[in-house]
Amino acid sequence: MAKKLGRQTVMFDRRIGIFAHAAVGGKYEGCGPIGRHFDIISNDPYFGESTWEKAESRMEKLCFNTLMKKAGLSACDIDVMLAGDLLNQCSGSAYALRASGIPHLGLYGACSTMAEALAVGAMIIDGGSADTVCALTGSHFCSAERQFRLPLEYGGQRPPASQWTVTAAGGIVMSTAPSMVDITLATIGIIHDTGLTDANSMGAAMAPAAYNTVKAHLAETGRPIEYYDAVFTGDLGALGHDIFEKLFTEDEIHLGPRYIDCGMLIYDPAAQDVHSGGSGCGCCASVLAAHIVPAMEKGIWKRVLFAATGALHSPTAILQGESIPAICHAVSLEAAE
Amino acid sequence: MAKKLGRQTVMFDRRIGIFAHAAVGGKYEGCGPIGRHFDIISNDPYFGESTWEKAESRMEKLCFNTLMKKAGLSACDIDVMLAGDLLNQCSGSAYALRASGIPHLGLYGACSTMAEALAVGAMIIDGGSADTVCALTGSHFCSAERQFRLPLEYGGQRPPASQWTVTAAGGIVMSTAPSMVDITLATIGIIHDTGLTDANSMGAAMAPAAYNTVKAHLAETGRPIEYYDAVFTGDLGALGHDIFEKLFTEDEIHLGPRYIDCGMLIYDPAAQDVHSGGSGCGCCASVLAAHIVPAMEKGIWKRVLFAATGALHSPTAILQGESIPAICHAVSLEAAE
Repeated sequence: MAKKLGRQTVMFDRRIGIFAHAAVGGKYEGCGPIGRHFDIISNDPYFGESTWEKAESRMEKLCFNTLMKKAGLSACDIDVMLAGDLLNQCSGSAYALRASGIPHLGLYGACSTMAEALAVGAMIIDGGSADTVCALTGSHFCSAERQFRLPLEYGGQRPPASQWTVTAAGGIVMSTAPSMVDITLATIGIIHDTGLTDANSMGAAMAPAAYNTVKAHLAETGRPIEYYDAVFTGDLGALGHDIFEKLFTEDEIHLGPRYIDCGMLIYDPAAQDVHSGGSGCGCCASVLAAHIVPAMEKGIWKRVLFAATGALHSPTAILQGESIPAICHAVSLEAAE
Repeated sequence: MAKKLGRQTVMFDRRIGIFAHAAVGGKYEGCGPIGRHFDIISNDPYFGESTWEKAESRMEKLCFNTLMKKAGLSACDIDVMLAGDLLNQCSGSAYALRASGIPHLGLYGACSTMAEALAVGAMIIDGGSADTVCALTGSHFCSAERQFRLPLEYGGQRPPASQWTVTAAGGIVMSTAPSMVDITLATIGIIHDTGLTDANSMGAAMAPAAYNTVKAHLAETGRPIEYYDAVFTGDLGALGHDIFEKLFTEDEIHLGPRYIDCGMLIYDPAAQDVHSGGSGCGCCASVLAAHIVPAMEKGIWKRVLFAATGALHSPTAILQGESIPAICHAVSLEAAE
């Protein structure tokens, strides 16, 4: 049985490990600082398909197939699939996985989807409802641009605070089988709406939600921030990163170099002009699969807090003058003893 | 610990009851056969708001507040909120619940969302990650029409196989506290794509998924269909109902009068011209909250299989020539001994 440590945090009883991980990215992501760690980089932004939405699904399917290959598993070994994405009706992941034959639970947490999937997967495994769960998500710059902003053909100008939707997919297999990295705790996010209405300034809208969740995590676990070798948010970008850091500084908690934002890590600010950084479901999912977990497996970090943020607005809501509700879910990743 | 009974079905160990239920509907739903059982019927389709999307959120918020009142609980008594809807980016439920202060997990199962939420909620409670979970979803005819089909102002003609998106919200509190109806088993759906591309014929696209899930449920539990006093699908409509029934007849399983479709129950076919029946996340959610659980509490049925279906396409995917992937999740509801 899992143990509740407070309003938001759950500590798991079974050992739930990250058994396998895979990341697929686009050419632009391949040129970034962690590009060489992706399992597959596609130079074709269409991934062989005829539309951006189909490309996104194909990329997620490729990620799933790569994940199964790396894990040495087949679809019938997966008890439950937890998947979602940013496309309307989560159609990216539904089409990617429609032929997988795996019991499927669709999630929607916007860019926080990977952390939500890890949390839900761990809760399900801990309770005995599943032994092996796959968490998968992704995003595509071109499908996101036309759905959330403007079709690429318009050549719209992006304001400085805007983030670049990452073309990438990340997948994780969670299981009770021995692994090098365990999911030990999850802190479920509470929706926080700062009242901001600028859909081109996501980092500012989401940073307070990330702060609330990480603060709740530290309070409910009794852990100081120093407990973690690295704390990742995903994806606040440069602007949100600074707000997040400032909010903790006001609490006299100094994050220091242990604090990294996935949206700032995936592109090279000197060579790739993405303004405030990367975003999209695929951003922190691929950083987790290509960078964080592999680094933990190599012993670089022993304890990592993975706190993924999501903006829960829709373009329609913004056009109707609504503000942006945000959420952040966090999971604690610890090197197996 | 939950016990896996097969690929898709999980049997719960803890007693997980339906502690409270609430349903809010529109005027048209209020005129239907179960209209008098709704907690609130609003004669104002805007629910006091200025847009259909805001109306949908307001209705869901009203349902949540009614649910808390009926349960004698406040938001701080709810450990986890499981919510989703059909609007792009699940914004209907996110805006409805953004001020609730409850740890929030967004789900996307289209019209199967309520069954998905019951299944996930029961798995989470059974594992000890939560004691009290709220499941909430809804849909609005007017927001769905303009998002999925045409704005109402166009006066578009609806083909005979089409279904009418229900303006309603349904909410359930699941808990380990003693209740009259327990959630004993859940069967997680596998996506099934029949290859159908007509988004005006959802029942036909979803019926095979419902058949697969109910068949798996019976096979994995070893229960004959007669075990259940009532089997509900939601929402196949008249067309999907007949396909579902026919598929079982081919297996020499005769469903008989125990089989009821939520989409056929919510409107009066003689007086309300909705063509094939009702649909939308709010359809089976409100039928569950206003009709099924109350009837079980009165002792009318002892054992009910609640099998909710969802079509996982998006309008964009259909315009790109894609077919409709469908899913069905089932939960077993049994009167507490």
